[in-house]
Amino acid sequence: MPRQTYLCAVVTFVACLVLMQAGRATPLDLSSISGPAIVKQLMHLATFSDDPNPAVTRLIFTPNDMEARRYVRVLMRDAGLSIREDPMGNIYGRMAGSSSTGAVVTGSHTDAIPLAGAYDGTLGVIGAIAALKALRAAGFRPERPIDTLMFTSEEPTRFGLGCIGSRGMVGALSAKTLDAKVDINGTTFKDASARVGSGGSSHEAILAGTRVPDGAVSAFVELHIEQGPLLEKEGLQLGIVSAIAAPAAFRVSLSGDGGHAGALLMPDRNDAGLAAAEVALAVEEATLAAGAIDAVGTTGYVQLGPNTMNSVPREARLEIDIRDIDAARRDATVEKVLKSIERIAEKRKVRHRVEVINQDPPVTCSQKVTAAATEAAEELGASHKSLVSRAYHDTLFMSQIAPAGMIFIPCRNGWSHRPDEFASAENIEMGVKALALTLAKLAGSAENESHSEL
Amino acid sequence: MPRQTYLCAVVTFVACLVLMQAGRATPLDLSSISGPAIVKQLMHLATFSDDPNPAVTRLIFTPNDMEARRYVRVLMRDAGLSIREDPMGNIYGRMAGSSSTGAVVTGSHTDAIPLAGAYDGTLGVIGAIAALKALRAAGFRPERPIDTLMFTSEEPTRFGLGCIGSRGMVGALSAKTLDAKVDINGTTFKDASARVGSGGSSHEAILAGTRVPDGAVSAFVELHIEQGPLLEKEGLQLGIVSAIAAPAAFRVSLSGDGGHAGALLMPDRNDAGLAAAEVALAVEEATLAAGAIDAVGTTGYVQLGPNTMNSVPREARLEIDIRDIDAARRDATVEKVLKSIERIAEKRKVRHRVEVINQDPPVTCSQKVTAAATEAAEELGASHKSLVSRAYHDTLFMSQIAPAGMIFIPCRNGWSHRPDEFASAENIEMGVKALALTLAKLAGSAENESHSEL
Repeated sequence: MPRQTYLCAVVTFVACLVLMQAGRATPLDLSSISGPAIVKQLMHLATFSDDPNPAVTRLIFTPNDMEARRYVRVLMRDAGLSIREDPMGNIYGRMAGSSSTGAVVTGSHTDAIPLAGAYDGTLGVIGAIAALKALRAAGFRPERPIDTLMFTSEEPTRFGLGCIGSRGMVGALSAKTLDAKVDINGTTFKDASARVGSGGSSHEAILAGTRVPDGAVSAFVELHIEQGPLLEKEGLQLGIVSAIAAPAAFRVSLSGDGGHAGALLMPDRNDAGLAAAEVALAVEEATLAAGAIDAVGTTGYVQLGPNTMNSVPREARLEIDIRDIDAARRDATVEKVLKSIERIAEKRKVRHRVEVINQDPPVTCSQKVTAAATEAAEELGASHKSLVSRAYHDTLFMSQIAPAGMIFIPCRNGWSHRPDEFASAENIEMGVKALALTLAKLAGSAENESHSEL
Repeated sequence: MPRQTYLCAVVTFVACLVLMQAGRATPLDLSSISGPAIVKQLMHLATFSDDPNPAVTRLIFTPNDMEARRYVRVLMRDAGLSIREDPMGNIYGRMAGSSSTGAVVTGSHTDAIPLAGAYDGTLGVIGAIAALKALRAAGFRPERPIDTLMFTSEEPTRFGLGCIGSRGMVGALSAKTLDAKVDINGTTFKDASARVGSGGSSHEAILAGTRVPDGAVSAFVELHIEQGPLLEKEGLQLGIVSAIAAPAAFRVSLSGDGGHAGALLMPDRNDAGLAAAEVALAVEEATLAAGAIDAVGTTGYVQLGPNTMNSVPREARLEIDIRDIDAARRDATVEKVLKSIERIAEKRKVRHRVEVINQDPPVTCSQKVTAAATEAAEELGASHKSLVSRAYHDTLFMSQIAPAGMIFIPCRNGWSHRPDEFASAENIEMGVKALALTLAKLAGSAENESHSEL
C-alpha cells in the first residue's frame, strides 16, 4: 500500500471514530441511583398498612392507601415532576419533554392484597420516580415527555376486579361493568372514590375523564419484581419480559339446602362446602392436565355460608384464577373446569352459577421496548435473560394503546403476595438504572433529536 | 259366690275406684296454652336479628341478643316468675314450690347461628314460660320449685364452644378453657359479658358464681323442635328423647407457603386450600365408612388466608363436627379423620395442627323424665314415639347433675339452622302442653304431696 493511501486510510478511520463518538448520546451518569435509599423509601411506604409489618395490607381508598398516595406525591414533587390525578385516582408525575406528545410512560401500583409484602408494585412506582430524579440529576432532557404513574387498584381485592386504573385509561372497562362491582360493604367504586375526594358524578363520567387520548402514549415500560424464582435460580440481575400471561377469572356460587350438622343425616345432605372442595380439586386437576409449566390454576377465595361448625354448608362462593401464556390452552382449561362444575353440581344436587370476572388475552411484549431494555441491560453490564411474566400487570392493559414491556429483578425464592417478599438493594439499584436508561432511550434526548430512536 | 260376699266385693271395688280417683292429682286445665299466641311471641323474638327475617342471626351478647334477653324477662315477669341471672348470663325464671330445694328445671337458648330460623332453642324458652303461666292459671301449686332457663351461648358461633352456659352451671368448663376462647375480634367471654354489664372479675369468678349447688336440681327437661324429619314423616305429634348424640368437634389449621396465583408454578405449590378441600372430603368419607345412619360428619367452617382470588392459599382453618350415638364408633371415625389429615398434610407438604374443641360423651336420657313425658303424652292423647336427638343440646350437660330428658315436636322437612325452619302452631301447642304436664308431674303438687312422684 502506498504511503499516501495508508495515511488517507488512517485519517478516514480516525475521522470515522470521532464521528461515531459524536453520534452517540452523551453517556448518562446514573450514579445518583442508590439501592439502599430506594429500599428506605419502600420501607417507609410499607408502614402504611392495615397489618403490622413486615406484612403489608393496603386496599384501595382506605386511610393507609391515602397515606401511601400522599407519600408518592411527596416523592414526585421532590423529583421535580409535575403532578396530576385523573378521576379514577391514577396519579401522573411528568418530566416534560421538548415535545409535548407521545409520552413514554412507566409506573406500577401501591395497593396490596391482605398480608402481602413491601415490593410488589411499589418498586415500579418508587423506582420510577427515582429513575426520573436521576435522569434530571444527570442533566438529561428528554425529547418526549416521560410520565411515572401510580395506577389505581391493580389488585382485585376491594372490588373483585384487577387493574381498574389501567383498564380505565385504555378504554377496556365499561361503566356497566364498573356499576356492577361493589366491595364487601356494597360500596361502589364511585362512592368509594367520592369519599376520598376523587371520582365523578357517574362511572361513565369517571371513565370518560380517565381515558387516555389516542397517540398520547408512545411506549410503556414497568419495573417489577419477578414474583417467580427463575432469575434468582440462574443468578441473573435482570429479566426482559417477552410475554404476559393473563388470567381467566371467574366466580362460582354453589347452593345446597343446609341444615343442622347433627340432625341432618348424611343421605339427606347436599353440602355446598363439599361441592366447593371438589371444584377446587378439579381446578388443580384440569390445570395439571394441560401439561404445560406455564399453566397455573388457583382457587384463592372460598366463602361458605353460614360458615359455622354446627351447620351443613348451604352456600359456597369460590373465586378461581386460571392463567397461561397460550390463550387457547388456557381457555381449554377453563372449559374443562366449567364442565367439572356442572358434573359436581349434578352429583351433589347443588345449584350452581358461574360468572366470568375477566378473561383477558395474554400479551406479547413490544419488540421496540424489549430492545431498548436489552440494550440498557448490556450497557450497564447486567446479566439478563428474556422471560415470561406469569403475574398480571397494568402493562397487560397499557399494551392495548402503546408498545409495552417490562423489566424484572429477582426476588427471594420467587416469593410474592406474602410478608417475607424480598428483593435486595443491589438488584433494586440495577433495576432502577435499567429502567432509567430504557426510558431515556425510548424518550430520546432533546439535545440530539436525530438519535432519539437509538 | 254368696250374696254377701258378692256385695262386699262390689262395695270394695267401688271404694277402690273412689280411692284411686282421690289418689290422682286434680286434672290440670291447660286450655290457656294457645299455639298461635306462642307463635306470635316467637315471631316477635325473631325480629331481634342481625339479618332480615325470616332469617335469624343472633350472636351472644350482641345488641339483638340483649333485646331478646330483655323480651324474655318481660315474658317471665308477665308469667309471675321471679327472675335472677347468674354471672354467665343464664336467666332463671322461678315458680316457687312449697319446698325450696330440688328444683325441676326446663329451658333452652335464644341465640342463633348466622341465617338460622325462629324455632331452634327459642321454643324451649318461650314455650316453657307459657307452660308455667298456664300451670299458674290452672291453679297448680308445685311442691318443688320450677325454673325456666334461658341458657347463654348454646350455639358455638361467637366463642367456638357450644353450651357455654350449661357447661358452666354443671362444672363442665374450666377457667383455663374459657380463657383460651376468643371471638373473631379477639374478645374473651369475660370482656364480652362485661361490656353488657354482666360477668365477673375473672373467668374463674364467673364460673364459681354460675355453678349450681349439688342437689339443687331434681330433674331437667327441654322442649325443642326435632331438627330431623322422623316425627313429621310418621305423622306423630311428640317425640320422647331416649338419647342425645354428642359431637366431637375439632379445629384444624393447615399452613403452606402461599404465593402469587400467576407466578407460583404448580410444582412449587403447597396449597393449604387444596389440603383443606381434601380434609373436608375425608371427613365425609370416614363418616360414610362408619356404615351407621346415626353417624354424621360435617366441615361447617372454612377460612382461608389471605383468601384473595390472586393468591395461592397459605392458611386454611377448618372446624369439623362428628357425631354419633355410639361413643366408640364416633371416636373411631374421629381417629380415621385424624389419620387422613396427617396423610394429606404430608402429601401436600403443608404444616398442620389439630385442636380438640370438645369430645363430650353421648347421653342416655333419664328413665324418670322420659316416663313422666310419656305419661303426659298419653294423658293428652298425643301420638308419640321414642327417638334419638342427633343435635346437641344443653340437656347433654344438665344430665351431668340431674335426671334429664327432652320432648320434641315435628318441624317441617326436618329443616333447622336455616331461615325456612318451621313448626306449626298446633304442634307447638301440643308440645307446650306436654311440657307443662311433665313439669307438673316432676315437681309434684303441693296439695297432694304424697303423690308427688306420680
